[in-house]
This record gives sequence, C-alpha cells and structure tokens, in this order.
Amino acid sequence: MASTVVRRLLRSPSSSLRSSHALGVYVLRQISGTPEPGAAGLVKWREEKDTMGAIKVPHDRYWGAQTQRSLQNFEIGGHQHRMPEQLIRAYGVLKKCCAKVNIEYGLDPAKGKAIMQAAQEVAEGKLDDHFPLVVWQTGSGTQTNMNVNEVIANRAAEILGHPPGAKVIHPNDHVNMGQSSNDSFPTAMHVAAMLEAHSKLVPKLNGLQKALEEKSKEFWNIIKIGRTHTMDAVPLRLGDVFSGYATQVQYGIERIEATYGRLLQLAQGGTAVGSGLNSKKGFDVKLAAELAKETGLQFKTAPNKFEALAANDAYVFTSGALNTVAVSLFKIANDIRLLGSGPRCGLAELELPSNEPGSSIMPGKVNPTQCEAMTMVCCQVMGNHVAVTFGGAQGHFELNVYKPLLANGLLMSMRLLGDASESFRKNCVVGLQANEAKISEYLERSLMLVTALNPVIGYDKAAAVAKKAHKEQTTLKAAALELGYLTEEQFDEAVDPLKMLGPK
Amino acid sequence: MASTVVRRLLRSPSSSLRSSHALGVYVLRQISGTPEPGAAGLVKWREEKDTMGAIKVPHDRYWGAQTQRSLQNFEIGGHQHRMPEQLIRAYGVLKKCCAKVNIEYGLDPAKGKAIMQAAQEVAEGKLDDHFPLVVWQTGSGTQTNMNVNEVIANRAAEILGHPPGAKVIHPNDHVNMGQSSNDSFPTAMHVAAMLEAHSKLVPKLNGLQKALEEKSKEFWNIIKIGRTHTMDAVPLRLGDVFSGYATQVQYGIERIEATYGRLLQLAQGGTAVGSGLNSKKGFDVKLAAELAKETGLQFKTAPNKFEALAANDAYVFTSGALNTVAVSLFKIANDIRLLGSGPRCGLAELELPSNEPGSSIMPGKVNPTQCEAMTMVCCQVMGNHVAVTFGGAQGHFELNVYKPLLANGLLMSMRLLGDASESFRKNCVVGLQANEAKISEYLERSLMLVTALNPVIGYDKAAAVAKKAHKEQTTLKAAALELGYLTEEQFDEAVDPLKMLGPK
Amino acid sequence: MASTVVRRLLRSPSSSLRSSHALGVYVLRQISGTPEPGAAGLVKWREEKDTMGAIKVPHDRYWGAQTQRSLQNFEIGGHQHRMPEQLIRAYGVLKKCCAKVNIEYGLDPAKGKAIMQAAQEVAEGKLDDHFPLVVWQTGSGTQTNMNVNEVIANRAAEILGHPPGAKVIHPNDHVNMGQSSNDSFPTAMHVAAMLEAHSKLVPKLNGLQKALEEKSKEFWNIIKIGRTHTMDAVPLRLGDVFSGYATQVQYGIERIEATYGRLLQLAQGGTAVGSGLNSKKGFDVKLAAELAKETGLQFKTAPNKFEALAANDAYVFTSGALNTVAVSLFKIANDIRLLGSGPRCGLAELELPSNEPGSSIMPGKVNPTQCEAMTMVCCQVMGNHVAVTFGGAQGHFELNVYKPLLANGLLMSMRLLGDASESFRKNCVVGLQANEAKISEYLERSLMLVTALNPVIGYDKAAAVAKKAHKEQTTLKAAALELGYLTEEQFDEAVDPLKMLGPK
Amino acid sequence: MASTVVRRLLRSPSSSLRSSHALGVYVLRQISGTPEPGAAGLVKWREEKDTMGAIKVPHDRYWGAQTQRSLQNFEIGGHQHRMPEQLIRAYGVLKKCCAKVNIEYGLDPAKGKAIMQAAQEVAEGKLDDHFPLVVWQTGSGTQTNMNVNEVIANRAAEILGHPPGAKVIHPNDHVNMGQSSNDSFPTAMHVAAMLEAHSKLVPKLNGLQKALEEKSKEFWNIIKIGRTHTMDAVPLRLGDVFSGYATQVQYGIERIEATYGRLLQLAQGGTAVGSGLNSKKGFDVKLAAELAKETGLQFKTAPNKFEALAANDAYVFTSGALNTVAVSLFKIANDIRLLGSGPRCGLAELELPSNEPGSSIMPGKVNPTQCEAMTMVCCQVMGNHVAVTFGGAQGHFELNVYKPLLANGLLMSMRLLGDASESFRKNCVVGLQANEAKISEYLERSLMLVTALNPVIGYDKAAAVAKKAHKEQTTLKAAALELGYLTEEQFDEAVDPLKMLGPK
Repeated sequence: MASTVVRRLLRSPSSSLRSSHALGVYVLRQISGTPEPGAAGLVKWREEKDTMGAIKVPHDRYWGAQTQRSLQNFEIGGHQHRMPEQLIRAYGVLKKCCAKVNIEYGLDPAKGKAIMQAAQEVAEGKLDDHFPLVVWQTGSGTQTNMNVNEVIANRAAEILGHPPGAKVIHPNDHVNMGQSSNDSFPTAMHVAAMLEAHSKLVPKLNGLQKALEEKSKEFWNIIKIGRTHTMDAVPLRLGDVFSGYATQVQYGIERIEATYGRLLQLAQGGTAVGSGLNSKKGFDVKLAAELAKETGLQFKTAPNKFEALAANDAYVFTSGALNTVAVSLFKIANDIRLLGSGPRCGLAELELPSNEPGSSIMPGKVNPTQCEAMTMVCCQVMGNHVAVTFGGAQGHFELNVYKPLLANGLLMSMRLLGDASESFRKNCVVGLQANEAKISEYLERSLMLVTALNPVIGYDKAAAVAKKAHKEQTTLKAAALELGYLTEEQFDEAVDPLKMLGPK
Repeated sequence: MASTVVRRLLRSPSSSLRSSHALGVYVLRQISGTPEPGAAGLVKWREEKDTMGAIKVPHDRYWGAQTQRSLQNFEIGGHQHRMPEQLIRAYGVLKKCCAKVNIEYGLDPAKGKAIMQAAQEVAEGKLDDHFPLVVWQTGSGTQTNMNVNEVIANRAAEILGHPPGAKVIHPNDHVNMGQSSNDSFPTAMHVAAMLEAHSKLVPKLNGLQKALEEKSKEFWNIIKIGRTHTMDAVPLRLGDVFSGYATQVQYGIERIEATYGRLLQLAQGGTAVGSGLNSKKGFDVKLAAELAKETGLQFKTAPNKFEALAANDAYVFTSGALNTVAVSLFKIANDIRLLGSGPRCGLAELELPSNEPGSSIMPGKVNPTQCEAMTMVCCQVMGNHVAVTFGGAQGHFELNVYKPLLANGLLMSMRLLGDASESFRKNCVVGLQANEAKISEYLERSLMLVTALNPVIGYDKAAAVAKKAHKEQTTLKAAALELGYLTEEQFDEAVDPLKMLGPK
Repeated sequence: MASTVVRRLLRSPSSSLRSSHALGVYVLRQISGTPEPGAAGLVKWREEKDTMGAIKVPHDRYWGAQTQRSLQNFEIGGHQHRMPEQLIRAYGVLKKCCAKVNIEYGLDPAKGKAIMQAAQEVAEGKLDDHFPLVVWQTGSGTQTNMNVNEVIANRAAEILGHPPGAKVIHPNDHVNMGQSSNDSFPTAMHVAAMLEAHSKLVPKLNGLQKALEEKSKEFWNIIKIGRTHTMDAVPLRLGDVFSGYATQVQYGIERIEATYGRLLQLAQGGTAVGSGLNSKKGFDVKLAAELAKETGLQFKTAPNKFEALAANDAYVFTSGALNTVAVSLFKIANDIRLLGSGPRCGLAELELPSNEPGSSIMPGKVNPTQCEAMTMVCCQVMGNHVAVTFGGAQGHFELNVYKPLLANGLLMSMRLLGDASESFRKNCVVGLQANEAKISEYLERSLMLVTALNPVIGYDKAAAVAKKAHKEQTTLKAAALELGYLTEEQFDEAVDPLKMLGPK
Repeated sequence: MASTVVRRLLRSPSSSLRSSHALGVYVLRQISGTPEPGAAGLVKWREEKDTMGAIKVPHDRYWGAQTQRSLQNFEIGGHQHRMPEQLIRAYGVLKKCCAKVNIEYGLDPAKGKAIMQAAQEVAEGKLDDHFPLVVWQTGSGTQTNMNVNEVIANRAAEILGHPPGAKVIHPNDHVNMGQSSNDSFPTAMHVAAMLEAHSKLVPKLNGLQKALEEKSKEFWNIIKIGRTHTMDAVPLRLGDVFSGYATQVQYGIERIEATYGRLLQLAQGGTAVGSGLNSKKGFDVKLAAELAKETGLQFKTAPNKFEALAANDAYVFTSGALNTVAVSLFKIANDIRLLGSGPRCGLAELELPSNEPGSSIMPGKVNPTQCEAMTMVCCQVMGNHVAVTFGGAQGHFELNVYKPLLANGLLMSMRLLGDASESFRKNCVVGLQANEAKISEYLERSLMLVTALNPVIGYDKAAAVAKKAHKEQTTLKAAALELGYLTEEQFDEAVDPLKMLGPK
C-alpha cells in the first residue's frame, strides 16, 4: 500500500554512515568547546549568510547560517538528543511534495525539480549527517525547518552545478516557498507519526498480537488455577489467559488507529498564524493530496488551521493511546514474569526462553529479561506522555512552542513500543512453554474450587467448607463430607475443574 | 434519548439529605475513634452476620456485616473520600437489571421485584446515606459491591415486611446472584462513566463549544495582531482565534466519544475470573440488553471477559481523552487570561466579566478567576490521569485490583471538567468583550506586517526593513521607502491587514 | 512539644456536626440550582455587602458577601471538593496570631481580642460549617481568605454584641489588617502542611516503621530463599527483608523532615507582591515568632518574599518527598502481597491477617486488602504529585495562582499516606505471620545455593553444576559430585545456607 | 577538590572518536539485521564464550559473549538509546577501586594492576566505543556490568600481552571479584549521579544563580508595576523580581545537595541480595573509602544493603529535587518570555538578546528561543520524573529491576538541566536589558497604586476610587479628588511608587 518512497524510507538501514564520524566531530566540538585537534587540515570552513550576517560553517556540510547558529546557541544534551531521524525524513517527503505543488504555482521548474531531488535524498536518509540540531532549540522547530531548507537548497544548487552558500536556490524564498515553520513543522510531525505508527509500530504490535493468539490456541487444553488479588481463585484455561492478553493488544492497536483521523489532518497552508498569509489558494489541499499520493496514507488539509498551529492536541491524544498500550504491555509482561518465577521457589507455571546468563554472581541463573526491558520501556512511555501532556497544554496564542519536545516524546514512545514489542515477541513469547506438571499440582490443591458449591449449598456453607479445609490442611471433599453438607457423589458432580470453565 | 431512570437519576439534586447528618456521625466516629457523645440514646445498634461472624451495625442503616467491617478496617481519608456517588447510583441501575434478568433464570419473582424496587431507590440516590465506604478499600471494590448487596437485601426485605439482618433476602445468594464483585464492579464503573460522560460532561462541553463559536461569530470583524512565541506576528481575526478554541473543544468531545465503544462493553457475566463460572448461559447478553433499555445507551457484553476483568484499559484510554480535553481547556483558559491581562499594564485585548472583588488588599482589582479555576481543574485531571495510568498498569493475573482508584479518578475528572466548563462558559466566556481600541492600536503598531512584502521584495530585504524600523523606532513604511525597496504605492498595496487574513 | 492550640486542634474529632447538615443543604442547593423545598420556612437570609454591592447570605452563617459570591460563581465538584479542613484550621491559628501582633501595631485591643477568640474557634474546628467554598476558585485563595476574614469578623462582632453584617469588625481593615491573600494564603498552606506532617503523618509513619522493625526482630532466625528478577536467588533472613522495609520508611521520614526547613519559612509580611506594602516593619518577624510560640514549630519569616509568593517550590519539593514515600510504601505493600499469595497456589511465605470475607462469589477467600488500599493510595499520591508539579510550574509574574490546587493536593497526599500507614500497620503488619514450613521447603529446593561454590570452583563450573541439576531435576550436590568438581565434604562445607548470610 | 581522575573525566571532550564510526556500523547492523555491505573485508569476527556457549564478536572490540548476546537480544531504540556515558565512566572508576581493594584481599597484583589500568581507560572515556548496549536490557543492568567486566578483562589481558577472549583475566572471577551486578550497578548509578550533580549540574546552576543575582543588582533602581493573576498590581523593583528568581535557583541547588546524603551511600558489598555473600568482611567499607579518595566525594557504605538493592528510593528523591528545579526554571523562563513579549504588541518590559532569525516566514522576527528550549527541557525532566517514580515503585523482593531506566532518566535530567541552565545563562540572562521607557509608562498608568490609600481611607473607599478611575478612563488622583475622600496633598503624600516598595 505504501508508495515507493515510503517503502524505501522504511527499509534503508539508516543514514549514510560514511560521514557520521565527521558529524560527531563537529557536534562534539561545538558542545565541548575544545579547539580542534590538528585543526588546520581536518575541518575546513566556508561562509554562509542569513539576515543576521555571516558565519562559518563546515565546508563539507550542506547546512547554512541558521543551522550553524542553532548548533552554537543550543549546546544542550549532546548528540544523543538530535532531532528524531523519523522527523527529518518526514520533512524530506514533505518538502518534495511542497516543491512539486509550488511548481504548479509558479516556482521555476528547474529549481523545483532540483529541490524535489534533494528532498528525496533527505527522505531516504542519505543526508542524515547534515542534520546536527538537537531537540532543545526553538519551540516552533524553526531551526530544524531552516536546517532542512538550507540543506535542500545547497544540495539542490549543487545538483544544478552551483556551490553551496551561493543561494542560487534560496532556503526561504524557494525551498520554504509558501510555507512557514509554523505550519510545516507540525505537518512533518504528523507525517512522521503516521509513517512510524502505520509502518512500524502497528505491524510490530500486530506481530505480538498474533503470537499471543497462537499461544492462546497452543495452551487451550491446559486448565490452571486462576488468581485474583494474587490469591487462589477458580480455574480457567491457560489459553483464556493468553486470549485476554491478545485482546488487550488488539484493542491497543485499535486505539492507536482511532487517533489517525486527526493525525491525517495537516497544518500545511496555515503559514505563520493559521490564516494562510503568503500561501496560495488551494495550496493546502493540493499539498495534502500530493502527500497522500506519495505515502499511500489519506492525508487531508486541516479544516481549522488556527487550531492546527496553536495546539497539538492530536499529538497529545495519540500519546494517550500509546500510554494505554504501555499500560497493557506492562500488565502482560509483568504477569508473564510472575508466572515464570522460580524455577523452584516461584509460581513456575511458565518457562521463559533462556537467552543469556542472568547473573554475574549466581551461576546458571536465567531471568525474565525481555519482560524487564518491556516494562522499563512502558515506564518511559508513561513518562514521555506526561512530558507531552505538559508541553501540549502550554501553547500561547497562535502557536504552541513545545513542538520539538512533542515530536521527540511521541516518536520515541512509538519506536520504543514497536521495538520492544518485536523483541518481546521474538525473544520471549514465541518460546514460552507451559510447565504442565506444576500447573496440575496447583489446580488439584486449590481451595477455591469450592465456589462450584455455591449454587448447590449456598455461599455461607461453602465458605465453611473452605475454611475448615484451610484450617485443618485437608481437602475440600474431606471437609465437605465431614460437615455433612452433601454426599460424595454430589461433591464430585459439582466440583470438577472441567465443568468450571464457563457459565452453565 | 435517555430513559426515565436515567433522567430521574440526573435530575435529582442529590441524595436524601434528611439523614446525611447521621451518616456523618457514624463515619466520623469510626474515623476518630471517639466514644459517642451522649451515646446511649443517639445510636442504637443491631447485629449482622457474615461468614466471619457477628458484628454490630447502626440500627437505622441498611448496610450489613461486610460494610461495617470495611468501615472499621479502612479509616483512610475520611468522609471526603467516600466512593463516588455516580458509581453507587450506577450500581443501583445495574442491580435492578440483574434482578430482572435473574427472575428469568429462576430467582423467586417476589424477591426479585423487591430487589428491583430497592435497587431503583439506590439508582435515584434515595439511599445515598447507606453507602459510607471510602475509595481506599479492597482493590476489587468487593466491599462496595457487598455494601450495595447488603443495603438492597435489607431494604428489599423491608419492602417484603421483614426486619433487616434476617437475610430473607440474601446479599450474596439473591442480590448478587450469578455475579461476582469482579465482574459487577467494572460493569458499574462502565455504566457510571457512560452516564456521566453522555449526560453531563459532553453536554457541558457542548455548551462551552457553542459559546466559543458564538464569540467567534461576534468577533468576526475584529482584526488583531497575531502572536507566535508570544512575539508580534501577522494579523488574523479575533474570530479566527475563537474558532480555533471552538474547534479544540469540538475535537475534545469527539475524542471522548471515540472511547465510548469500549466503555459500552460490559464485564458482567465473567464472574470471578472471566470464565463465567456460576453464571448462566446467556445471562451476560440479556443483562447488557436490559441495561441498554434502562439507560438508552448501547451497552453490549464484552466479547473477551478475561480482558474485561484483568485489565481496565478502557478506563485508561478514556482518561487519556479527558487528559487531552484538559490540555485543550488549559490552553484556552490560559490564553483568555493573558489576552485579558491589564487593565492598563497588560495586553488588554479582552475584557473579562467582573464577578467578584479580586483582592483582599488591592481595592478594585478584578481577576481572571474563572480561568484560574479552570486551569487548576485541568492540572488535577492531568494528575488523576497519572494515577489512573499507574493503577491501570498494575493488574496481576486475572484481576486488576486498583478499580476503586480508577473509578474515583476518572469520575472525578469527568465531573470536574464538566462543572468547570459550565462555570467557565457561564461566568466568563459569554461575558467576554473585545477591547477594540486596544486591538487596533496594536495592529497599527506591529512590525510583522512586513511579512506581506516577502512575495514582493524577498525575505532578506523584508527583514532589513523590519530591523531598520525596529532599530530606529519608526514605521515599516518609512523604513521601506528610505531603503528604496519599493514605492509608497507598492507598499500600501502590499501591506494591508485586511488583505493579510488568508491565502491569495 | 506542640502547644495547647495544636494539641486541641489535632484531638478534636471533627467539626461541629450540629450544623453540617444545614451546610450541605446550602451547598447542594447552590450546586443543583434547585429551589428550596418548602423554602419559606427552612432557610432565612440576611444581606451582606462588599465593594460590588449587596447579596443575600443564609442568616445563620457567619460568612459574608465575598464567600457567597464564590459559592455561586464556582459550582465545581460539589461538597466533596471543599477546601481542606486542615487549611481552614491553620488559617484560624494564623489569624489569631496576626490579630495579636496587630494589637501591638495599633489595632484596637477590644476588637483584637474578639478576633483572637473567633480565630481560635476556627482553629478548633468549631466553625467548620461556615466554610463552604471549594478548592476550584480563584488561584490565590483570596476567596477562602475572605471567607476566613468574614466569618471571624462576624463571629467577633457577635462576641462584642453586634449582629453579623454590621462590619463593626471589618473583614479587610481589621481581620486582614496588614495582610493580603497573597501572603496569608501561602502562610496558611505552610502552617497546615507542617501541622499535618509533624503531628499526624510522621507519627503514623513512625508507627509503621517501628512495627516493621519489630517484625524484623521477630523474623530474625528465619532463613529464606532470596528472589531477584522474581527468580530464585541466594538465601537471606526474613528479618533482613523487613529490615530493608523498615529502613525505607525510616529514610522516608527523614526525607519529609528534610523539607521542613523551607516549609517553616513564611510568606506573611510580603502582602500583595512580596514587597510588604501596607505592612509594618517587623510585622513579619513578630508574626512568625508568635506562630512558633502558638504551635511549637520553628516558623521563621521568609528571607525573600518575592520568591515566597511567586513560587510554591517548597510545596513541590515536599510533594516530591511524599512521592518517594509512596514509592517505598508501594514496594513494601506489593512485596507483602506477593509473599502472602496463596494460600495453596502462591508463594505463601507470609500469612496475612483475615480481616473480612474476600469475595462475593468465592467463599472463604481472604485477600491482601490492606496492601491493596495502600498501593491505591500510593498511586493517588503519585498522581497528586504530578498535579502539584504542573501547578507549581505555572506561576506568572509576582504570584503563583494555583495555590488551592497545591494545598489540596499536598494535604490530601499527607492525610492519605498517614491514614493508610496507620491502617496498614494496625490491620496488616502487626498480624503478619511467617509460614516457616513453606519457607524451609523453598530454601532446601533452590538451585541458587550454588553461588557459594564460586570462590571454590569458579563461576563457570558452578554454572555447569546448576544447569545440570536444573535439567536433570536433581539436587546440586548430586550434580556437583557427578561432575567431579569437588568432594562431598567440600560441598557440604561450602553450601550451607547458614554460612551464606553475609561476607566472610 | 575533585581528584585527578574526575577532573580528567570531566574535561575530556568525549569518547575516542576514532572508532565511533565502526561502533555505529556494528550497532546499526545488529538493529537493522542487514547483511554487511562488502562484508568480507570490513568486519572480522572472533569467538567468545560464556556459560551458554560460543558466540562471534567483532574482532576489534573488547567486549565478550554476554555483551554480544545482549546486543542481539535487545534491538530496542537504536544507538540514541545507549546506556548513558556518565554511567559507563563511573563504572570505570568503580572497577578500578574494586580491583585495588581486591588486591588487598588476595587478587593477584599483576592482574589487579592491569585491571586498574584498563578501568582507568574506561573512566577516561577512551573505551567508550566498546559499550554498545542500550538502556532497554535486563533490569538489573547485569548486561552492562558484564560489558564492563568483559571489556576490562580483555583490555587488561592485552596489557599483559594476551589476546582477547583467552580469559587470562576472567570477567567474573577477576574483574567482578566479590561483586554482583546487583550491588555494583546501583553503586555505579550513585557514583555517576554524584559526579554529574557535583561537577556539572550544580556548577552550572550556580552560574545561572549568579547571573540572576547580577541582574537583580543591575535592575535595582528600576521600579515597575507588579502583576498578580496577570493583572496590574502594586509596584516593586525589577531587581526584586530577579532576586526572587535567584532565590529560587539558590534553593534548588540546596534541594539537590540535600539529596547527596543518600546518594553517597553505596550498595557495593551487598552482592546478590544485600547479605554480602561471596564478599569479604570489610570490603564494603574499604571500597567506599577508596572511591572517596579517587573522586573527592564522601562516599560511604550503605548501612542497610537490603534496602540499597531492593529499592532505589535515593534516586527517586533526587529526581524529585530535579523536578522542583525544573518547576523553578520553568517559572523563570516563562516569566522572562512574557516580560519580553512584543516588541510592539506585548509587555515589552525586557529585551532579550537576538541570537538568530526567529521565523522562516516573518522577516526580522526575534523569538525567546532560549526560554523555549529551557521550558521544553523542564517538561522532559518532569516526564522523566514520572518514569523514574513508576520504575522506582516497581521493585520485587530483593531487587528493583528498573535500574537502567532509572539511571537513564535521572542522568538525562541532570544533563539537560545543567546544559540548559548554562545555555540560558549565556545566551539569554546575561544579555537581558530593561526597557525603561515602557516600564515607566506602565507604572504611571496603573490603577493599583490605589492600594496605598487603604491605611488612609479604608479598603472600601479605595475600591470606589479605583473603580471610578477605571470606568471613566481617568487617573486615580482625579477620581479621588472628585469623590472628596482626601486632599491633593494627602493623595500625593500617600500615592508615591517610591514609598510603596516595602513596609512602613
């Protein structure tokens, strides 16, 4: 369903590794403020200009003056805090489509096509190393929009045979034509979230859901004791338990998909404050259609662009769906960990795959490490959700200026949930085995089978039976017969785990 | 659309006030541990029994032994922390429907009808004073389920002419017939949430949405300066601003409604662990149909009841929708507060109604108090959302035992958002007035009208104009002409706020 | 240590119950908007005035015009959301001290003494029913400050023989003399938090700490298998486990006490914006000294009152300490629940007291309900902490206007943690029993005793032993001997749980 | 104060950049699962073994089998989610000290010294590229501990002239001697947090505090209108405002330092479950002393090691302090942004430095970007705090297994707050300028100077004056005189901003 660009985008292992080293050098040097070692030869600089004047940028980078200023003004968090790759690539897709539509509106076709080609390279991750900016910058994402504009402008100029910095293709007038950071950044946010959700997160959750469903079938005939309040309760199938898990994941997927409607609405065309000043009539609609074509996703222009700039409620709501998914996955992973506890002093109803030595001091120990990674990821997603919530509430007037925070939080949560689901599926769920001996042992031992006596002798007498058995460490049957509430035949007829698995 | 019982339920001002005093006395005495003042005459006691033995309960209360035990064992938080009224009343509706269906399954019709009548009284709030238990009790809500069962049993027995405590109608065997706390408590949670959302919260949000839309129309012809990053930006209509707010609320309503699908799925019929043991085949479907008839809401039985007991993800997701609504309302209220700041040293574009003196020391001060109440409510809703998230993630095995926490958090958030929306609408939004003089003054003064020159002279020259005007404290036109970038006619043609309100 | 007023304040069971009924009627009528049933006779009204004009108030209430306006303008949340009692009473203490100091600064002594007497009644809870306002009002708490001023003014006037409403004692000029809501509300917040922490929360935590320590001693000689990652690990004493719990609570108390330093700093004297305008020189210092005398707590005037009004960071930090305590108590209660799981199909190392029937459907079931109440409380405290954090961050300029939210959140968390700790101690911890048979069974069975072989045969060989024993379902000794890594004597010497409880 | 190693540790710009490229290749290949391009020549492999058998690792990496397994089993989040560098380096310091103490306890000195040298290289960041593992792994951090052990073992062997993989120096028996992941990982967490707090975060906050204090002095003589509820209030000095900010930061530093006490307590010596099995008597005390010497920080051994492993409350509380700091910085940055709003249509009392072009569409726009970065960082810190809180509450039994989440969250928050404080100081605070013309204009215009009349004519008359002036758009003086409440002389005497800056 997804178009070529998207498929390629998703398949490419990562950015051009050829030059990540050099990028690291620039960024780290900025951050550490250290003079370059053997500077002379290693890094060469060229001059770039913006409305504030001239500034030196590394000669082999496509970025321009505004990117460089941001790099110097926001030394916060280091290279691990670079703007999410997903956003940069989505921006590539967006700028390509903008250029295509702009040609219709009068952009010089030669320039337009060069821009499209450069933007495509951004979309494919070929220029990842030209995006050094961190999340913690201006709250509109303007600096990243300009980073995109500058890189595309210089690369497009190069395609047309011009050196970088010459502004043959102008980052604002040509690449950013008819756009503002204020509408393009939230548009890129929506495109990135949709691509990540639709092409990575949901497929991985689907994989997990299928695996849980498989287990539900595999474990169908295994009857086990139920536990409520962590205490012994009435029996159910081990397959039932996994059907509950599978349902949780299924509903989680549906919750995520229920938020697509608003994510598919795009701010593009609102320009600076939502009114669309300096844009052209119809640009918004055409752009959305172009993006839909390019990605295979049903993007539409937002009917109210004042809302689309001033608030990022769509992101907050999607984050709420991820939060719910995290809650579900936490429960599932935590249960599996506890059911697998042991091997000799725990519940030990499940056996988890042994993927690695578990302890640096206790030889032979195997731990539920996939459950641990998953539950930690869920905590981080819940934390990110709070960050997104708080940032989402803080817009002032015509623009919410917590957009990079929101983009980072949501896209990180999506990736972590997707990756963890896949890892959990592959390295844990598919290899789960039931310890049937243990399960049977518990089932026979439990006192809560007494519940089947309620309809026969009433709640109060049934309670007396259970209490007597517990106190005297005997069986339910012995206690029931001794109390004379019913005959052995009646007891055997009523108390049969196989008959306790559903309504009558 | 809602049936009689629901309408009545929603209209009745509150519980029977006649006896709330006495309830307070019992509860406070429990909590404070003080001997009763002039005890002899004031409170009389009768004996009630459960499977743990006999215990004294106040003679004029319908509750029984298990309620009394909980009252004594959970002295946490005091009377302000009683289980939400909404839940108790929803439980009344639920128990009525259960009795009706149980008659079909063999419950003695005389008893069944008495139970239905007593349950109806619970639904109408007539017995509110017989529900003293706090939220912080057992995590399954069993004690509140038993409180409901006991009160209905004793009241139904009374209807049939028997004294309380005689167990002519048994709380477990008759009122709770075919049910468990584990399925009925989450069912009551869903019924309560749907009633609150559908009949109170959403109508109040709708009211606010309409009021904002009205203001959008009223303010249509007022052109104001936009603000992004809190800094002067390009102009838009004041009506545009309010259209954004109205859209946010509209989307918020849709988000809440998008969560109805799962809230309408009921756990009832799953009994203790989701399997339906001790329930009858078809009970779940008939019960849901009966509830739908009684409330006018499309309740259905949950397809997977293991999920419906072990997890409360539906609640977590709905809480996520409320969280998003809180984010929206926070933004709107905060904006209105800032736009109304002044009267002489702030932005002062809006004038808020003067509802009360604002300061105990500064005479004549009027404050945006409705905005303050609203934004505080939003913070609490975000906090409750975290509590609900944590509790939602913590289920173990076949039962999530944070249900009272979840019920309390979600229903509190719903009520607070509804009430605050109504108060904000009535006491703030409808009385908002635009300070047109001030708005015009700003509009004329702003430098950001320069943006209209981009398509004419390019971004870089336009920036030079703005900077010159700012530096020399002059007008854009003066600066532009002096720089010789265009003629006065061209300037006047391009820079006209009226032409800057949309795409060309 | 605490003075008379505080002791009395803490001992009095609750507010004057005589009239809570009537208060409920007023409040509910406000909220429901319903006409009064049999209105004529039931409620009589008198007129009160403020700077906005006249308004009717119930004739038997001491409150005045501003309280009544707030009651009508903020119908949010209903009576369960009234401003916390702790705050109202602390305000009583504060106003008494203010009056005393004001006499020194020229307040008419007769009026001053009447104010002191009325304030004392507020402090003792005798006038609780005259404080109907909800938390969700103006963000400075001005309306509650005026409620306090009005009630004290009218009651003091009454003491002097004047009818309410006559303003013989003026709420602003006399009761609020030299004060502003902006300094007195945060002062009352600090006083209330200190009283609650010092006189209730910490003593209750201390009680719990002692109980855990007692258990640690009681369980000293019981050696059990340890569990890490929920998997079998090396042994330790059951007493060690409880020593860890006791230490957590001990550290929690110290964390709360570490926040006293800032809570003891008072804003009073800063008046409207922190500068102290309209206050008298030295008032702040004298007032703090007077409060210290009255309460026995070392209150001091805040050195920087701009900070003390504009921010409520002290509250946020204290909330962080409560959050940590909640984290600790969650862990402890969760562990105890899991160690007590069973009775026949769980870990079953502990037996928890049976306080009530556990299930409405499963007879004889006993559940860890105190653990459930405690962990739910902890979730709410974590949620409140987020609400407090958000509200704390939102101050604008000279005043944080989320103060009632903060007061409500922190004081609720304190009360819940205190009450739940006491309930958990009394109804769970003191009655815990060790299931020694089960504990021994696990200890003997575990494979992780192999760890003792590390220093003898090395990690890799020890791992081989454990793996062989696990695979072949045999004992460690059998596996070790078969592998020939050491002699039986050597094995017995090394692998002895009693020698595995500490370093060598 | 800090010792050589720490100073070096803090000064070194970053890891050995020479090989980060190659590391990226390995990691990405793992994550993407793609075959290596031109594989043959690029990466060579060698075999390593652990108790699970043999596995291939890249030949030029020091890590061993367990690291490689984790790399393959936890493909979650990608290279941006690698375990924080701060933790790895702290681990280097720790392992060095352990080796030194172990020599005293019988570790072969030649091996011990080689281990110390290799560990020192880890501490200095020279081996950063040998630590590819992500945060989302086992919850005890065992895999990172083993990564450290393996790298040090192989590097130390190399120092002694042996090839990697030969286990001449054994990762468990020698490098991890007397240790467990369960005690060494939390120890490294504490060391990393103390180093980051003491050497980076607090100094940067101190820098900001000083800068704010400087501004307070610089702005001392500027009198401005105060604002409460965002509405005009009584005057204060601009210097007062900044004194409040400086006090907030000062208190924040003290709050962080108040958490040092527990961070300085080390788990090392507790080994697997807190009992110290396989450790030697006195090892814990000596190790803490050695670490204190090495770092200049007063580390001590934890008195109760069961608490130190099972819970990470110290981290949760420190996170609470960071959360409070975030609240303070949010308030300050938000205020400065609003005070700087404009330039022509906002409050415009402050002028912020122009560091970069603010808009891609509005030429000449300058935005409060440093405030935006700071407030976004604060939101993330609040979100991380929730993640840390949730993870902190989730320990089971003898070990909290959310340690990598906690380490990542806290260390990220520390770094972000430190970096953002430094950026905010350098790029915003020091360059702030007061717009005195605007400030004076507001001051003269405000109606709230009326407050000075309270002590002269009473609150009610003063309110009448303000209301009349507001309604008639006139001055306070005109209104007061017209109402005849006092003479012009009296008015001028009372209403003088210069006399309204403090108590009388």
